[in-house]
Amino acid sequence: MGDAEPVPIRRARADQARLVADVLRHHIHDGGYPHGLPAEAELSVEFGVSRNAVREALATLKEEGLIDRGPKVGTQVAIRKYDHGLDALVGLKETFTGYGEVRNEVRAAMSVAAPPAVARRLQLQPGEPVLFVERLRFLGDLPLSLDKTYLAPDVGAEVLKHPLETNDIFALLEEVTGQRLGSASLAVEAVPADAHSAAILQVPEGAAVLLLERLTHLDDGRPVDLEYIRMRGDRITLRGNLVREL
Amino acid sequence: MGDAEPVPIRRARADQARLVADVLRHHIHDGGYPHGLPAEAELSVEFGVSRNAVREALATLKEEGLIDRGPKVGTQVAIRKYDHGLDALVGLKETFTGYGEVRNEVRAAMSVAAPPAVARRLQLQPGEPVLFVERLRFLGDLPLSLDKTYLAPDVGAEVLKHPLETNDIFALLEEVTGQRLGSASLAVEAVPADAHSAAILQVPEGAAVLLLERLTHLDDGRPVDLEYIRMRGDRITLRGNLVREL
Repeated sequence: MGDAEPVPIRRARADQARLVADVLRHHIHDGGYPHGLPAEAELSVEFGVSRNAVREALATLKEEGLIDRGPKVGTQVAIRKYDHGLDALVGLKETFTGYGEVRNEVRAAMSVAAPPAVARRLQLQPGEPVLFVERLRFLGDLPLSLDKTYLAPDVGAEVLKHPLETNDIFALLEEVTGQRLGSASLAVEAVPADAHSAAILQVPEGAAVLLLERLTHLDDGRPVDLEYIRMRGDRITLRGNLVREL
Repeated sequence: MGDAEPVPIRRARADQARLVADVLRHHIHDGGYPHGLPAEAELSVEFGVSRNAVREALATLKEEGLIDRGPKVGTQVAIRKYDHGLDALVGLKETFTGYGEVRNEVRAAMSVAAPPAVARRLQLQPGEPVLFVERLRFLGDLPLSLDKTYLAPDVGAEVLKHPLETNDIFALLEEVTGQRLGSASLAVEAVPADAHSAAILQVPEGAAVLLLERLTHLDDGRPVDLEYIRMRGDRITLRGNLVREL
């Protein structure tokens, strides 16, 4: 303990428990506790909260599948989450180089008439054909995300000539156009998994899912790739850096 | 319709419905349909899917509280989500200038002993006192986020001399240090709302929540502000831009 006498927290147990769970959760995601979490008594002292609050926090993390607890093994980290960058425009396969094999189960790949809202984003006329691709993306045996992609028709037709099972669409877009990708606009939301997505992603119905809408442009500014991506909330953390600029 | 004959989608209704719901959801968030959504028959043609799939998609959006439906009024947008930037380091009050008044209900503001995981991020010794602040943040009458903040002790003591109800902590940090903020590292996750957070944020238990962990540095590189922020998933969209750089 430091020199100054900190005031102990006197708050509702649920408030204390949530606080402990939040700090532990992020420390686990940062790769902390490779040899297991400290004992309840130790955490109680570290956080200046009651043993009951610590127990409640650990119960929350266990429910999230993040830790395992047992009388002999103590409290161990059960799953790791994977980081996906918010700073750069990188495909899933590029991101997880070194973590394991990314493979894609192609659930649909077809030409469809562009709905008006899609056509507008891709600067097409409503009803013009676009290429639609749906992929369930695995890291090893673990389903990570369910991606729905609309591609501009000319570029999309070329992309679909290549195997989508093992390639990022980003890499294929650059290959078929001979251009680098430029920028993308991104929207991130937390949504509950509908029954159908939940079954596909192997999570409980209503589980928290990261829903990304991403519109990617070629280097010349033309929008060619509109994606709706559902990432498992229990498996992926988005990470980035922010800079102050007022 | 365009010249080329697009192939109609023949897929499971649930797949079709999810697709329609995703596109409509983002179009609504972009400010689309100010005078109401198109009729079911029209959407069925736009998306090339069955009326039943459209109905299922609209039911999903209604369940999310995004639209209202009635026999006389048709289908209207019920709520708007607010955008929060992923590109720059901006406080909630700065972000929503022009949208309404941001006010903070201060639920806790006290000195506590820094848990080791917190101390490490703020480059303090474990057990050193840190200032802890918990705020429930409203835009008008609507609770938007529940923020737990750990501040470095010297800076935090100065910040707490100011009214937290009406100021962003970012603005206060710059005021009391005479420095601009530098950069922040950010982690974004989708998590289910625990019972207690849910009650505070006025959402159902288990509702999808955006959980941000953000460590903010002063311009001189010193980390002074570690926050755990729960944002209502049904009210906030995070938006940013990505650039290709391999």
